[in-house]
Amino acid sequence: MKEHARHALMHGFGLGGWIPRCLDADARILPDGQGFSGDSYWMAQALLAAMEGNGPSHPNPCVGAVLVKDGRLLARAATQSYGFLHAERALLQMVGPDEARGAVCYTTLEPCAHTGKQPPCTEALIAAGIARCVVGADDPFPAVAGRGLAQLRAAGIEVQTGCLEKECRAWHFPFLASLTLKGQRPVMIGKWAQTLDGHLADDHGLSQWISGPRSRAYAHWLRQKYDAILVGIGTVFADVPSLTVRQSALPRLRHPHKCIYDPFARLGQATPEILHALRSELKSEGPCLFWLVQKKNWREPSWWKEWSSFAVPVFLEEGSGWPQQLEALAAAYLQRLARPLQSVMVEGGTQLLTQLMRADLLDAWQVFLRAAILGGQAHRIGRLPVREGEDPLLINPFQALQDKLDFTLLASYQLDQDIVLECTHPRFAV
Amino acid sequence: MKEHARHALMHGFGLGGWIPRCLDADARILPDGQGFSGDSYWMAQALLAAMEGNGPSHPNPCVGAVLVKDGRLLARAATQSYGFLHAERALLQMVGPDEARGAVCYTTLEPCAHTGKQPPCTEALIAAGIARCVVGADDPFPAVAGRGLAQLRAAGIEVQTGCLEKECRAWHFPFLASLTLKGQRPVMIGKWAQTLDGHLADDHGLSQWISGPRSRAYAHWLRQKYDAILVGIGTVFADVPSLTVRQSALPRLRHPHKCIYDPFARLGQATPEILHALRSELKSEGPCLFWLVQKKNWREPSWWKEWSSFAVPVFLEEGSGWPQQLEALAAAYLQRLARPLQSVMVEGGTQLLTQLMRADLLDAWQVFLRAAILGGQAHRIGRLPVREGEDPLLINPFQALQDKLDFTLLASYQLDQDIVLECTHPRFAV
Repeated sequence: MKEHARHALMHGFGLGGWIPRCLDADARILPDGQGFSGDSYWMAQALLAAMEGNGPSHPNPCVGAVLVKDGRLLARAATQSYGFLHAERALLQMVGPDEARGAVCYTTLEPCAHTGKQPPCTEALIAAGIARCVVGADDPFPAVAGRGLAQLRAAGIEVQTGCLEKECRAWHFPFLASLTLKGQRPVMIGKWAQTLDGHLADDHGLSQWISGPRSRAYAHWLRQKYDAILVGIGTVFADVPSLTVRQSALPRLRHPHKCIYDPFARLGQATPEILHALRSELKSEGPCLFWLVQKKNWREPSWWKEWSSFAVPVFLEEGSGWPQQLEALAAAYLQRLARPLQSVMVEGGTQLLTQLMRADLLDAWQVFLRAAILGGQAHRIGRLPVREGEDPLLINPFQALQDKLDFTLLASYQLDQDIVLECTHPRFAV
Repeated sequence: MKEHARHALMHGFGLGGWIPRCLDADARILPDGQGFSGDSYWMAQALLAAMEGNGPSHPNPCVGAVLVKDGRLLARAATQSYGFLHAERALLQMVGPDEARGAVCYTTLEPCAHTGKQPPCTEALIAAGIARCVVGADDPFPAVAGRGLAQLRAAGIEVQTGCLEKECRAWHFPFLASLTLKGQRPVMIGKWAQTLDGHLADDHGLSQWISGPRSRAYAHWLRQKYDAILVGIGTVFADVPSLTVRQSALPRLRHPHKCIYDPFARLGQATPEILHALRSELKSEGPCLFWLVQKKNWREPSWWKEWSSFAVPVFLEEGSGWPQQLEALAAAYLQRLARPLQSVMVEGGTQLLTQLMRADLLDAWQVFLRAAILGGQAHRIGRLPVREGEDPLLINPFQALQDKLDFTLLASYQLDQDIVLECTHPRFAV
């Protein structure tokens, strides 16, 4: 287990967080000298606190913070559920009235300087009399954007920025990317497991399992990092998934919303047996299901009454492009949940992922790679199936090396026999 | 640079060795407490010594050894060119007559106990009066196989085995795998660079460059680890390669032999311009070129006189399978070089690599993976091109997940934006 903790220090901190910490209950940060030291050590503790709070704070960023005095940990906290305390206030609530005086606060993101659902964190830090504040990533949110740091400095607090900045920016990717996109659409993260030759399933559609149990536990934990999971109807029929957080590596704090992309309303044509199985999986746990379907294909199915308690149809216009379709989903989400849809993890199938790639709408990838060659014809990433009578070159046009879709590799981890790649689109600064 | 050295400690030691050490002249082992310590520290030094001697000792294993007394390094050495000193004797030659008395010898492989081209290393170690011998990997070579350790113990030397054993076994893979295969054919290592969707080149055959400069420097250094490089004639025409060690990360100690797989003698039909370019590349440096061609297709080309100074034809029987073809190559090598062909690195193209995979003749993979999606039709690993009139399902049959070719992942490294995977066939114990 110590081995894993050491790996964690060295492999960096990707989009998902500190993987071995997720997977091994007893993995821990090594003492000074064997990895992080000084400020980095405490910032790593703040990142761990953030990981322990993964999920419920959305659309607020899940900030982690620790309070340290005389080299001793006073408190650790993460941003609470949306509308409740931010990490810094949660932290100060844990200590006695004068205990924080002269302490150092480590926080993964610049403290907020504005009143949202909560008053500014900067006020609380100033009032508590902390001596120093160490910050991971700047917060470019227009109402903060350096003002948080300025307020702290104006109050005589020593401020240091850029501590484990790369790691903190990676952790806060959904929030930061959403700002870059100006909230015009949800941040889209592709997640899949593949063999070395790019297959996500064999020619019979079987994909269980390409990756090993540690990868799957990590992938389950990741689900709660994102607001929703999107899968195509083909995957729904092939896997009959529940799309919940189950074998998670760390405790589950929320389920993501479920979204099924089914423009031709194939769900409406399923046999009663499959519908029954799907209903029991999809209804079992977690919040409501969004069924994305073209309006012209929608006829209210006979079983709809039963499903309408947990499923919401999202109507797509015929011929609308992906941006419009995502807009329709985001609007339905906002209407139902009264908060913006910030991030969507696309889990498959191959066709849906490839379509989104070609539309240049994937913002990050979390890929679980198996050192195996599968061979065969179907379910290969980057390639769409060619149907009878279609011109293969129109469906999968010739490609030149210089035009390849080249992502930025943030981190890679080895999880037993799998390699995890965490990458972001070059439109985002790293 | 310190960053890279730390990575090295954590990422393990794959088939190729300690990558960052290859790539960064100032990468170094960290002092005790920050990585290896005690015996592991010195064994890592022995592995470094082996890497510095990479190549010329073949078919002898390239052993690294260090001599340590009172926590101080006395000497470090690697096995010399074939027929010259083994690492342990080279080591003892570097110190004064009584200096080695009471010292500790760290060696990556069990010292030999038999007389080959050199007398046994055990005798030299015993005569020098060392107190302790720490061994990485056992040597299963029938004439050694535990006898080396037994002789040392019988002479009162304290012997410890299994120190960084996994790393030492990985380093000595070509030698150990050759013993497993009982020398019946060369050990075959597949090396290629690919995108995430399994493409080794774009649809125009362009592959320069999928991987970055650090990967390429590592790949060049790797070439001297293996006795020969094998490429298909398609790759020869597409890339006009010289197949030498050039932009290597560490000093070059040998060039590999060059082998071109060209059953239909397409080389004989090349234009004078291409032949001229190929000749200047292939003749430029390094040892002779083996041209593998079916006997029935061979007509001595008009330019053969010019080429015969550096090129040797290897005649293949029509309809012979891969094992026979490799046997023919090994026989030609033995005849020309008077030593066995122990290892061959297959560098492409896609078709040759895929054919060898399907024949289950690749023993290890060294894959440079780029986090990019290329798309397109051609040059995809695991898939053979389908020609006009051929049944696609006969050429690339349907595959079931359970039948996938699953390699063992020994190590993975991140080299800038690439990931290197080093894997071995499950027929070899790791």
